[in-house]
Amino acid sequence: RVNADRLWDSLMDMAKIGPGIAGGNNRQTLTDSDAEGRRLFQKWCDDAGLTMGVDTMGNMFMTRAGEDPEALPVYVGSHLDTQPTGGKYDGVLGVLSGLEVIRSLNDLGIRTRHPIVVTNWTNEEGARFAPAMLASGVFAGVHSQDYAYGRKDPEGKTFGEELKRIGWIGNEEVGARRMHAYFEYHIEQGPILEAEKKDIGVVTHCQGLWWLEFTLTGREAHTGSTPMNLRVNAGLAMARILEMVQAVAMENQPGAVGGVGQVFFSPNSRNVLPGKVVFTVDIRSPDQKKLDGMRARIEAEAPKICEALGVGCSVEAVGHFDPVTFDPTLVATVRKAAEDLGYSHMNIISGAGHDACWAAKVAPATMIMCPCVNGLSHNEAEDISKEWAAAGADVLLHAVIETAGI
Amino acid sequence: RVNADRLWDSLMDMAKIGPGIAGGNNRQTLTDSDAEGRRLFQKWCDDAGLTMGVDTMGNMFMTRAGEDPEALPVYVGSHLDTQPTGGKYDGVLGVLSGLEVIRSLNDLGIRTRHPIVVTNWTNEEGARFAPAMLASGVFAGVHSQDYAYGRKDPEGKTFGEELKRIGWIGNEEVGARRMHAYFEYHIEQGPILEAEKKDIGVVTHCQGLWWLEFTLTGREAHTGSTPMNLRVNAGLAMARILEMVQAVAMENQPGAVGGVGQVFFSPNSRNVLPGKVVFTVDIRSPDQKKLDGMRARIEAEAPKICEALGVGCSVEAVGHFDPVTFDPTLVATVRKAAEDLGYSHMNIISGAGHDACWAAKVAPATMIMCPCVNGLSHNEAEDISKEWAAAGADVLLHAVIETAGI
Ligand SMILES: NC(=O)NCCC(=O)O
Ligand SMILES: NC(=O)NCCC(=O)O
Repeated sequence: RVNADRLWDSLMDMAKIGPGIAGGNNRQTLTDSDAEGRRLFQKWCDDAGLTMGVDTMGNMFMTRAGEDPEALPVYVGSHLDTQPTGGKYDGVLGVLSGLEVIRSLNDLGIRTRHPIVVTNWTNEEGARFAPAMLASGVFAGVHSQDYAYGRKDPEGKTFGEELKRIGWIGNEEVGARRMHAYFEYHIEQGPILEAEKKDIGVVTHCQGLWWLEFTLTGREAHTGSTPMNLRVNAGLAMARILEMVQAVAMENQPGAVGGVGQVFFSPNSRNVLPGKVVFTVDIRSPDQKKLDGMRARIEAEAPKICEALGVGCSVEAVGHFDPVTFDPTLVATVRKAAEDLGYSHMNIISGAGHDACWAAKVAPATMIMCPCVNGLSHNEAEDISKEWAAAGADVLLHAVIETAGI
Repeated sequence: RVNADRLWDSLMDMAKIGPGIAGGNNRQTLTDSDAEGRRLFQKWCDDAGLTMGVDTMGNMFMTRAGEDPEALPVYVGSHLDTQPTGGKYDGVLGVLSGLEVIRSLNDLGIRTRHPIVVTNWTNEEGARFAPAMLASGVFAGVHSQDYAYGRKDPEGKTFGEELKRIGWIGNEEVGARRMHAYFEYHIEQGPILEAEKKDIGVVTHCQGLWWLEFTLTGREAHTGSTPMNLRVNAGLAMARILEMVQAVAMENQPGAVGGVGQVFFSPNSRNVLPGKVVFTVDIRSPDQKKLDGMRARIEAEAPKICEALGVGCSVEAVGHFDPVTFDPTLVATVRKAAEDLGYSHMNIISGAGHDACWAAKVAPATMIMCPCVNGLSHNEAEDISKEWAAAGADVLLHAVIETAGI
């Protein structure tokens, strides 16, 4: 078993970097805090005897050599970046549990046949630069590096500039590594495991996603002196699209979600009807047909809503992945590890996207989940217990040993 | 008649300060650009022989002495501040036409019995600090100066700090001045005069307004892993309130408007359901009963909409004025001036709020309007012709001479 206290202490130490305003974290990708978090992780890895590689997307690969020089490494990882009002565990738990696996193997003097690599993927959250899981996406060949470097944050700064600015562009070609297997341990971010009173989620699938960024063009005009019948009201069109997205998601129950997290009014002045409204619709389903059907419905309905108001409507997909099925052998390995350790467990579908979804394109991959309080995530109040954290790390340790061989 | 070219040149010179991004202006109140615009106006007034007074709200009073030392001054004015994406004429036309009246009287060697004071009111727009017409409101005793000094912009800076920072806190007690009459010349900001092909709007009334700032409290949560039935979706509640406001305004046709110009999502991240949505509803009517009825309806319906979604709802009135009836004698003076000058004219109700609405509380007051292209205002594309500008300034000149006496 892992050292639960050591894992927890590391989680708490990392949480001191980029503190939030309500007990959580704001350590968004490619900020100074991100750089500081990376340096702390690097130091811990040094102390554990790992050697560092960094690729041109800033992905960090911390290697523990294996007994067999020919064997491909087993990767374990997740991300250290957070939402602007994020929790202390989303992503961080997976990275630091990877480190805890290494520390435990060191303590026990266990050598594995395959090397083990603990990974921190850049910009998993997608909060600052859409899409989410950007760097693992480039690693897996889903996006080009040029595309990634050109992504802009809301202030117009590019990913490429910011990666350079914080000093974490490495020299390794991105995606050149080959993986024997990829494991990612993550909090559930949803309410199921807690409700079902299970220690461990054995993740069999991940639902697919579309992020549809709408740009609605109205006519900027005075809210007082512009008669109702002469308005070209992009804000009203936005409101109707939100309601329509809600309806589309409800029609696809169970097994679908839809909502809007980001809205920008322009010029955003109390007495000016907006000339432009930009917002992003987030729809997901584990069922490919439902996912594609929802997208088609929304892209068909939104222009009609806008047309009726004279509002211009354009839409761009700024994030997408299809539903993922994880590797059955690794899934069975995780289930068996939970079983052997005596942890209660159930199969679960990941509601959030993860770097594992892209890793699954280039290697056998799977995930392990632990519960989180009230299913809350992407919220500074995100919470887990030390015991929950350690249970998943124990399962990770056993699954890694099984897969890396001793 | 005034000098149309000189007026136009001054308008164009002022528009160079705080340029916008699309041909208009961003000279928001209490910014460095505002200070620069004030200095240019001050210089022009110096050159025209006026003496300056500035009160503790930063209101500028530029006085041309009258023949009768006992007579109360006739005030003419408006504002030099703009919306973030504002036009070159909204407000500025009134201030610089006041100056043009002085310049024309100087040219003609005409002395008036009453002094004439050209006024630039601080923070008319209310874009940076709600409410609009803040400084004329303090002048008229509607708000306390403490209230005004404490108003905050979206970055949290206060009106008082910013007024001090730009160096335009005067030493005159605000509201100490008494007025013989107040005239304000302004572009219509609506479509009526252009559609009716009239040179001059004789403004008889101004519609009343409520700005209702809603703060909706949802639960920040992951857009992917939070099931539809567990969402506390403040964004959806906002959408429903927007639709309801639209319906309330439509039920009150004709003679009412309602809309939303400003919306803030928090944390405003694509994959986070908003924990907080703040937005301002702007409703107006010249009919007191309709205005109050709309407010009551909206404040009754919004909590029901929120309750159905489990969303918290609080509302604060951040701007308000009742419908205004302008002084019949001054209105007749304006009408007669237009008549005498041979300009086509019609009675009109101001759709926007103006400093004249507060001045009317403490003095006989009225307004003059000229058309604007497509009724467009609070838009950088706001436009008028030199001839339209000059016609209203001519009417202002005649009305001022008539009222100030020669
Ligand atoms: N795990 C997680 O929150 N990832 C961000 C991408 C997503 O929105 O699913
Ligand atoms: N004239 C003008 O646009 N004033 C701003 C206050 C309002 O919104 O009516």
